[in-house]
Amino acid sequence: MTHGGGGSPTLDEVARVAGVSRATASRAINGGSKVSPQAQRAVDDAVRRLGYSPNAAARSLATRRSDSVALILPESDEMVFSDPFFGRMLHVVSRTLTRLDLLMVPLIAERGEQEERMLRFLRGRHVDGAIVASHHRDDALADHLADMGLPSVLIGRPWTGEERVTYVDSDNIGASRQATRVLVQRGCTRIGTIAGPSDMFAGHDRLEGWRQELAAAGLPAHAVVEGDFTEDGGTRACTTLLDLHPDLDGIFVASDLMAAGALRVLNARRRRVPEDVAVVGYDDLGTAERTEPPLTTLRNPIGDMAAEACRLLVEDMESSTKGAPRRVVFVPELVRRASA
Amino acid sequence: MTHGGGGSPTLDEVARVAGVSRATASRAINGGSKVSPQAQRAVDDAVRRLGYSPNAAARSLATRRSDSVALILPESDEMVFSDPFFGRMLHVVSRTLTRLDLLMVPLIAERGEQEERMLRFLRGRHVDGAIVASHHRDDALADHLADMGLPSVLIGRPWTGEERVTYVDSDNIGASRQATRVLVQRGCTRIGTIAGPSDMFAGHDRLEGWRQELAAAGLPAHAVVEGDFTEDGGTRACTTLLDLHPDLDGIFVASDLMAAGALRVLNARRRRVPEDVAVVGYDDLGTAERTEPPLTTLRNPIGDMAAEACRLLVEDMESSTKGAPRRVVFVPELVRRASA
Repeated sequence: MTHGGGGSPTLDEVARVAGVSRATASRAINGGSKVSPQAQRAVDDAVRRLGYSPNAAARSLATRRSDSVALILPESDEMVFSDPFFGRMLHVVSRTLTRLDLLMVPLIAERGEQEERMLRFLRGRHVDGAIVASHHRDDALADHLADMGLPSVLIGRPWTGEERVTYVDSDNIGASRQATRVLVQRGCTRIGTIAGPSDMFAGHDRLEGWRQELAAAGLPAHAVVEGDFTEDGGTRACTTLLDLHPDLDGIFVASDLMAAGALRVLNARRRRVPEDVAVVGYDDLGTAERTEPPLTTLRNPIGDMAAEACRLLVEDMESSTKGAPRRVVFVPELVRRASA
Repeated sequence: MTHGGGGSPTLDEVARVAGVSRATASRAINGGSKVSPQAQRAVDDAVRRLGYSPNAAARSLATRRSDSVALILPESDEMVFSDPFFGRMLHVVSRTLTRLDLLMVPLIAERGEQEERMLRFLRGRHVDGAIVASHHRDDALADHLADMGLPSVLIGRPWTGEERVTYVDSDNIGASRQATRVLVQRGCTRIGTIAGPSDMFAGHDRLEGWRQELAAAGLPAHAVVEGDFTEDGGTRACTTLLDLHPDLDGIFVASDLMAAGALRVLNARRRRVPEDVAVVGYDDLGTAERTEPPLTTLRNPIGDMAAEACRLLVEDMESSTKGAPRRVVFVPELVRRASA
């Protein structure tokens, strides 16, 4: 490296290495517009080579580099394309970032090799920030992102590193209590649930809400089968659930997609919905309106969470100092249709 | 810039600017492993600042930078998420690149502002190459990519710049002739078509194939309505088509998704398929098996095209010299089911 060591590099050194005047270097660093692309590039390179701070300058430079934000989807591409959750999130993030003149760079990466490759890309600073959608118990994305100092916001509370990152979340437990309460208030007394994967908060917390509400109502809470948030998974889980507990009169299903699968099983077994078995779903992302009967469900505030995540991220990207992690929690809304 | 001008920069100049020995510079440029990250970075920066060639060195350096490949989808995100064409393409590209230890970076960009932002990202060399899926008449992506010298492969023949880029394609005209021939050979004599958008090759060429085959059979070719490759678009187009030409006995539909919409209209009007009206679709990406009745269709070789595009791209990325543009054309296969 050309920087001789000893003390932080100065603006003069940057200008010298870049072969431009001090004024030009300053304009290039502070986002002035009267800088030729060549000079801008030379100054950017000099700043990088010299490790020039203060942070504000480095950050503004980093921001200038790509004008893009990663949307990290830590799932298989099949999952991303089959679950309307991801399509909706991508749509809102894309629209919001477009308005902020930023490019959305979706990165679909399952744990393992794909994640390693993605982390290398992020460390290379090919994007200026990252939004993470959905995550599993054993991933360490929040820690990785905090370690590399890349401005990041998670959608959904992380399993580890919670205190180190900014995240937006929705009140899954409160909403699932509300969903279960609909069944209790109809007079259901044998209420089962099809839960989501227990390694995801949406799975874990929605099961917990169902448990808490049944406990509060003095009803038993042992009819549980876990699904995988897909429609076919809902069909399989409902088959098992009814085989084990044929007398259920209410089911809380942790996603509408699984509920659509469950309704198929109930229809095939000639159980009327809601007369024989009342059903409440979760998400309200389009599926709930198209099932037979349409689903009473909780509206997952994905649009609000995604827009807020973009807002928080850009605030962080534009700030000269790293602030304390923040959290914002949205409350899902009950949508009443025919299934309960 | 520090480079004094006059002649190409030499390896010695790169070493001097990077502050490393000639041997280290050479190792860093040629992918040697015994180079500290700092020295590697300094040499990379020096190469960029000086515009050091030969191409081989610059290319290998660029490749080392991100180990990623853009998959450009020049459509709205709603289109990408609703049409199985894109999900399938993304799946195959992702799987193929993963095997090559490359990260897939999907870039969903409609023309206009989003495209401009994406082109800036590509010019910044945040990816090492690009694959473009689908494209419209008035986009100039092939030219843009050729101009910036980024290794690129298009899936589908471009409207302009065809002679400047490598692409893979499928024989849409031949396949559509084959689809129409199925209807002719059943004895249909009043054969209409629901075409795709005329600003896309898949729309344009499939209409052309239908025309050619009807001309060869001496049958009239005037019952044409254009759809937008969506299911709802197929429903609207079929309604118009049957209102204008109530006596049709065969319809070639330029995508299975539109054909699914068309079948709904035929069912609602009590026209039996294939007895009253025979229908042939196009794509065979899952939809064709689930319609009532299942669709006779042409299998769009998306998987083959996507895998071949990756192969050609990596060859180009790894080659030290820019070769002549290449083209590979795949032939779709007829899949017979119940609709014709």
